[in-house]
Amino acid sequence: MDGAAEVRITRREHFSAGHRLFLPELSDAENYSVFGPCSNPKGHGHNYRLEVTVAGPVDARTGMVMDLKRLHDVVQAVILDKVDHRNLNLEVDFLQGVQPTTENLAWAFFQELAPHIPKGRLRRIRLEETDRNSAEYEER
Amino acid sequence: MDGAAEVRITRREHFSAGHRLFLPELSDAENYSVFGPCSNPKGHGHNYRLEVTVAGPVDARTGMVMDLKRLHDVVQAVILDKVDHRNLNLEVDFLQGVQPTTENLAWAFFQELAPHIPKGRLRRIRLEETDRNSAEYEER
Amino acid sequence: MDGAAEVRITRREHFSAGHRLFLPELSDAENYSVFGPCSNPKGHGHNYRLEVTVAGPVDARTGMVMDLKRLHDVVQAVILDKVDHRNLNLEVDFLQGVQPTTENLAWAFFQELAPHIPKGRLRRIRLEETDRNSAEYEER
Amino acid sequence: MDGAAEVRITRREHFSAGHRLFLPELSDAENYSVFGPCSNPKGHGHNYRLEVTVAGPVDARTGMVMDLKRLHDVVQAVILDKVDHRNLNLEVDFLQGVQPTTENLAWAFFQELAPHIPKGRLRRIRLEETDRNSAEYEER
Amino acid sequence: MDGAAEVRITRREHFSAGHRLFLPELSDAENYSVFGPCSNPKGHGHNYRLEVTVAGPVDARTGMVMDLKRLHDVVQAVILDKVDHRNLNLEVDFLQGVQPTTENLAWAFFQELAPHIPKGRLRRIRLEETDRNSAEYEER
Amino acid sequence: MDGAAEVRITRREHFSAGHRLFLPELSDAENYSVFGPCSNPKGHGHNYRLEVTVAGPVDARTGMVMDLKRLHDVVQAVILDKVDHRNLNLEVDFLQGVQPTTENLAWAFFQELAPHIPKGRLRRIRLEETDRNSAEYEER
Repeated sequence: MDGAAEVRITRREHFSAGHRLFLPELSDAENYSVFGPCSNPKGHGHNYRLEVTVAGPVDARTGMVMDLKRLHDVVQAVILDKVDHRNLNLEVDFLQGVQPTTENLAWAFFQELAPHIPKGRLRRIRLEETDRNSAEYEER
Repeated sequence: MDGAAEVRITRREHFSAGHRLFLPELSDAENYSVFGPCSNPKGHGHNYRLEVTVAGPVDARTGMVMDLKRLHDVVQAVILDKVDHRNLNLEVDFLQGVQPTTENLAWAFFQELAPHIPKGRLRRIRLEETDRNSAEYEER
Repeated sequence: MDGAAEVRITRREHFSAGHRLFLPELSDAENYSVFGPCSNPKGHGHNYRLEVTVAGPVDARTGMVMDLKRLHDVVQAVILDKVDHRNLNLEVDFLQGVQPTTENLAWAFFQELAPHIPKGRLRRIRLEETDRNSAEYEER
Repeated sequence: MDGAAEVRITRREHFSAGHRLFLPELSDAENYSVFGPCSNPKGHGHNYRLEVTVAGPVDARTGMVMDLKRLHDVVQAVILDKVDHRNLNLEVDFLQGVQPTTENLAWAFFQELAPHIPKGRLRRIRLEETDRNSAEYEER
Repeated sequence: MDGAAEVRITRREHFSAGHRLFLPELSDAENYSVFGPCSNPKGHGHNYRLEVTVAGPVDARTGMVMDLKRLHDVVQAVILDKVDHRNLNLEVDFLQGVQPTTENLAWAFFQELAPHIPKGRLRRIRLEETDRNSAEYEER
Repeated sequence: MDGAAEVRITRREHFSAGHRLFLPELSDAENYSVFGPCSNPKGHGHNYRLEVTVAGPVDARTGMVMDLKRLHDVVQAVILDKVDHRNLNLEVDFLQGVQPTTENLAWAFFQELAPHIPKGRLRRIRLEETDRNSAEYEER
């Protein structure tokens, strides 16, 4: 394979978590007008689908951009172990003070993962909150 | 069509909700040993997929067992409006005192819906909590 | 394997077709009140997902209830070649005078297929009109 | 979050519609040779899956690129209300004279939606006609 | 909940394996005529989707028919550890001498799992070889 | 439509194949440490999902970037007929000496297909080995 060719690999993971979208300075009614039912004060949750994309040249011997098993292990340790079956507003260190929208989660997951992936290789985080709503953050 | 022929129709719906599995008389550690991460005291949640099956003869003129739009409206009013973006432990009248497992939810939804469907026609409730775990309750 | 054991096999197929739900003796407004947007006079259509289930003992040598390739060929010839990319109200011989609801289609497909499957083996037709609406007809 | 960071959000919608691919100056046989079974003169249809992607910086307070509920409302009013359960050749104002291929639909939907989304933010329309065939139009 | 009410729970698992359908007494050409491309002498494989259904009354305290985590552990130990990333013709003790069709696999998995599930509770094994072909074995 | 507008179309295909990841100069234990269970000496396999994306201007008369039926025929002849129900290590001419990882397959399929697609139009190959692992190769 041409040494310069870049291939992208994607690992898909799943987790379930609770969250609430709200601004503490607003009343419940005001929060509802901004965030809709996602502002429910007693919380709710989702099954999130997470995609992590890594890009790079393909190793001539192994045929891999990066071992997908190792990529899974990194995502498990850095993200899934902290968010799965957790309350995203209250229990995740790197989300303190972050509004847990799909947009912010995608961006925050990228920042958390990047130091654990060979430099410049983490390309994209895509996160589905439901079958209908998703967000992605990409760096090229 | 043969007058005696019974056909089953199924409507698939979605909702997102929060829940916690626990027994109040147990400690957090004891609850974890029974319910695993689903016992997380700060809650979490899921995107639930709900299937409602109604069986009956097909109307000779309309070709319908039951108008699927009307079935949707019933499920919306009786179930979805009460559980979507809600905390299943705290906010649903008909789930007070019910452990919100997928099994119990399927059974409870059946009891709630049955009085609103022509007698003897509600056949099955199937509920997926995740892509991997589901429960169904059926009456023939 | 125990000679009496019955196993069910299912083949899933797809087709796209147009249809309109209406009663000719009603006005467009009356049809709309009965059938909703499916009564649109200029037609519309769907990608249908069809499941055909055959049950029987497993052949001791081949390990098959019935060759799935042969089952596919039968469904292709008897159903798919007649309905795929067709108008279900106007172009399908065995649907003349049939209201093309999912219920009626499931029942009609069963009647068409049964003579082409070893006697008593065709068990169920399941038809999805959309991800949300489906019908099934079963004989045991 | 870094003020310059752009995140993409995607809303997925569904509609069912009828269409026919043909050129009026050709015979039915000639149209079949160009468009295959999609040229069936009596029409057929599909369940379309539509994805609308909007890109922009994330609002520091709400954590949103754009309220997904508002995005849904725009897509509903500008696209879905006009195409769902309609004949795409005959009943959609902005498709008059347009061959209703997936390619042309994706492009036309982009043009219709762009004026209703904050300037420069609409990024991509992706449209699946079936599980096997899709088209996308993107502006960066 | 009514003490007699039976609820069914289903756990969905995945594995990838290789197999070949053939009869040793036949030539390659004869095997092809019986089994088609699945008889390829150098083997091929599939991503199998496995569903295990257990039925029973719901425990009044836990709200469970059976702990789904424990069900997963049983399926992992009894089935998945033996078949995942394996050659089904050559490497699975309980499949020696079994033609590895989807039918036979579903039946064999049922026999293997039954002794590890509370007596009479294992209800159904459903196995998808591809999105189009599946088999199920059920005992009531 | 604006003459310069480029639209992308994607055709999704499926095939099942067997493979083994290994380096002949390594022992089985060493191969396991590099490739994990994918190095199983007796082979295994997957249901692959293949997406082929072609980009170009839309033809003013037909509304097509390229006839999707013709695109399918090319993919069938150039790729699917060679890999479906085959052993990717042993039976595919253009994969001789290639480690059959998802990365290498995506890249190799691109090279094979490019000469059969109008020059510069083949844009991307995306290949899913399982629901969790995929690779894509893109040229712009």
